[in-house]
Amino acid sequence: MPWYRKDLLDIESLSAEEIKTVLDTARAFKAVGERAIKKVPALRGKTVVNLFIEPSTRTRISFELAAHRLSADVINFTAEASSLRKGETLRDTARNLEALNADIIIIRHSCAGAPHFLARFLKASIINAGDGAHEHPTQALLDMFTIWEKKGRIEGLNVTILGDILYSRVARSNIWALLKLGANVTLCGPATLVPREFEKIGCRITYNLEEAIAQADIINLLRIQHERQRKTMFPSLGEYTALYGLNRERLAKTKPDALLMHPGPINRGVEMDSQTADCERSVILEQVTNGLAVRMAVLFLVNGGQPQEIAAT
Amino acid sequence: MPWYRKDLLDIESLSAEEIKTVLDTARAFKAVGERAIKKVPALRGKTVVNLFIEPSTRTRISFELAAHRLSADVINFTAEASSLRKGETLRDTARNLEALNADIIIIRHSCAGAPHFLARFLKASIINAGDGAHEHPTQALLDMFTIWEKKGRIEGLNVTILGDILYSRVARSNIWALLKLGANVTLCGPATLVPREFEKIGCRITYNLEEAIAQADIINLLRIQHERQRKTMFPSLGEYTALYGLNRERLAKTKPDALLMHPGPINRGVEMDSQTADCERSVILEQVTNGLAVRMAVLFLVNGGQPQEIAAT
Amino acid sequence: MPWYRKDLLDIESLSAEEIKTVLDTARAFKAVGERAIKKVPALRGKTVVNLFIEPSTRTRISFELAAHRLSADVINFTAEASSLRKGETLRDTARNLEALNADIIIIRHSCAGAPHFLARFLKASIINAGDGAHEHPTQALLDMFTIWEKKGRIEGLNVTILGDILYSRVARSNIWALLKLGANVTLCGPATLVPREFEKIGCRITYNLEEAIAQADIINLLRIQHERQRKTMFPSLGEYTALYGLNRERLAKTKPDALLMHPGPINRGVEMDSQTADCERSVILEQVTNGLAVRMAVLFLVNGGQPQEIAAT
Repeated sequence: MPWYRKDLLDIESLSAEEIKTVLDTARAFKAVGERAIKKVPALRGKTVVNLFIEPSTRTRISFELAAHRLSADVINFTAEASSLRKGETLRDTARNLEALNADIIIIRHSCAGAPHFLARFLKASIINAGDGAHEHPTQALLDMFTIWEKKGRIEGLNVTILGDILYSRVARSNIWALLKLGANVTLCGPATLVPREFEKIGCRITYNLEEAIAQADIINLLRIQHERQRKTMFPSLGEYTALYGLNRERLAKTKPDALLMHPGPINRGVEMDSQTADCERSVILEQVTNGLAVRMAVLFLVNGGQPQEIAAT
Repeated sequence: MPWYRKDLLDIESLSAEEIKTVLDTARAFKAVGERAIKKVPALRGKTVVNLFIEPSTRTRISFELAAHRLSADVINFTAEASSLRKGETLRDTARNLEALNADIIIIRHSCAGAPHFLARFLKASIINAGDGAHEHPTQALLDMFTIWEKKGRIEGLNVTILGDILYSRVARSNIWALLKLGANVTLCGPATLVPREFEKIGCRITYNLEEAIAQADIINLLRIQHERQRKTMFPSLGEYTALYGLNRERLAKTKPDALLMHPGPINRGVEMDSQTADCERSVILEQVTNGLAVRMAVLFLVNGGQPQEIAAT
Repeated sequence: MPWYRKDLLDIESLSAEEIKTVLDTARAFKAVGERAIKKVPALRGKTVVNLFIEPSTRTRISFELAAHRLSADVINFTAEASSLRKGETLRDTARNLEALNADIIIIRHSCAGAPHFLARFLKASIINAGDGAHEHPTQALLDMFTIWEKKGRIEGLNVTILGDILYSRVARSNIWALLKLGANVTLCGPATLVPREFEKIGCRITYNLEEAIAQADIINLLRIQHERQRKTMFPSLGEYTALYGLNRERLAKTKPDALLMHPGPINRGVEMDSQTADCERSVILEQVTNGLAVRMAVLFLVNGGQPQEIAAT
């Protein structure tokens, strides 16, 4: 299926077919990453701006490397030492970047909706790299890619998302993607962090860890986001780990081929113990590798590339 | 006219012919920006260093993109986390950059004269990206380019510069360029910020806004530089806006084809209201786009490029 | 001699032949720096990460330029605003960079042994850009290159290292390299900073400056590392300079062809006066230039390049 969107703002508004187009495109780019020379000229002469108002080294580097591999020029624009601190509005900052001929603006912002706001008046393509507690679509796409690659399908799989659902844009984007692609989604965590509202869109909710993971094909552990919680939503990290932390004993009660995922960075000893993080069922580092291919795909598609062109690049 | 200078330090020492050479060269490079692949190999293998001792995201990014488009390698060197903080002198820092084979050093510094100081002992080309309250030559050149492109000429035009003249390197560079190219320059703002000294070099000075803008072809509004004023030179921002802020009513009393310029970032509601900033007479974003072409021209010329070579690149 | 190591972690474990291989390779790359287009495609499509947990503009830029000249893609990862601040372990950060297909990770870290730790479990090549007070191997290699280029040999030369030996990774790496290549090494400085232990590995130690420099062919002045000394190891900077600072009078009592080296950044008026730093016997800026060639050589060799291939690139 061809791709018609100039932006990637969220998963909620994508169709299952559009998600599959990204995954197919990413598969082609993953093969590029295994060549001796890992670059293609697809975005040569294009300018990609990393507009990271909320800091993030990990996601910024993944996008920066993806852009380099497509031969684009990349500019990093961070909140520190920027014109935003001189009182400029986000709208003016973005319009200035467009006036500098930015072709693609990748934005991370602490306010939900910031990417949608920019997309409305810019001709440049906007990619949401995380907006507040709203969405983080490329994370969900790389998670889908990883599941698809490992399990051969997504439809019909039991996927459990564990932890801080309420504050997690990763959870929101994953839930939308999984439901659209036909997975059975279970959410689990402390009641304060797993609101019942998610049942309305088709998720199963349980506050009991064993029940949540017993039949799971995929267990996606979210990071406890200290930085995004204004007040503590559970008594202590130790208590969280006691109730919901993954370890050898708990893993023994899951399906033998259940896979462990985590968007990183891991708090070792909190969401899971170290042994679990490094066990053979963990695909955490493969998620990182797949992130590169998925972000190449997204940059390529929003810039007007069509999937069938990749083989020729 | 060929270009003979290794540096671009200020506008004051340039001839009208040299300014026109930059503008002609920029026009050729602006056409490159409209190609499908916006790069030329003119500076391939050359090293451009952004030595920004005073922070500036906007100007740094403009130079960085200009260098990328010329296929140069770019290094960003900022004051934070630098050897300057280990007690190294500016002279030693610059000589080290030259020893690393830097071909062009773009410097922004809070001290007037810092670029001239470096230019005296370095073989590398020095470009002044703003030195204290002294000059900001590439800003003036992009302003001249914008006026020339919009009005077809600069000679004989009435140009009003409005606001914080005393502390503004943008004003100083613009005044020199406009006078050399034959424009009639009016300066206007609070008396504390618009010293009478400028009359000696040929500017008209008035403290009355209506008088300043009535016959203007170009109104260039300067940013109120909170960060560069040690003590407040006017009672309040609100009072400044009441007396000198541009709005619909005041704009109605200007020539119908008078254009609005601003070097950015705009303080919306201070130098002008939002409606004025976004009206069709505003060429603020075109200034940004032209900045890229002008900076490509300057990088190209100081590196020894000659205008007639561009078509062939 | 071919090169077999995937990493460059220290000088202590290198053989004299391996050091010479780096120097030979650097000589070939120095010639590249004198071409009109100073780039070779040797590392095209490769990803080099500057993982600078301890800040350093100077060394980071030297590696970044070296990587650019080899046509690699470079990512800068600094401690500020990084996932390390979110509680991620160094091991996880490094494994994530490898999962992003980093081919070479250049690490500077305040803990001795950090590069060796990473090298044990990563397939990516690790280059030590300074680890605590342990080693700074590329600095020693560029110092050896400079001596070799200037004097035609290293074996049999009298080399005096002056200053803060105890806290200096530059001293440690230089001592290993000089001893392996057959130089006679004298260490001099305040007794608190020049421990007798170094005699055991074959250095001469003296606390008398005149004695230390009288027969020296090379005088390598170390930077007084304010930032690495927890308590002051000598009464005052002034006293240090009075006893060990180099100046015209002291220089007059050395061999007429003795050369002055310094790893930078210089504290003018502390390790030496300004006149001495800039005299014709100072090769300080040539060290910087040679650093670029040496770092190109190291990047090339750890990536599997073989010296004889360079002419063909």
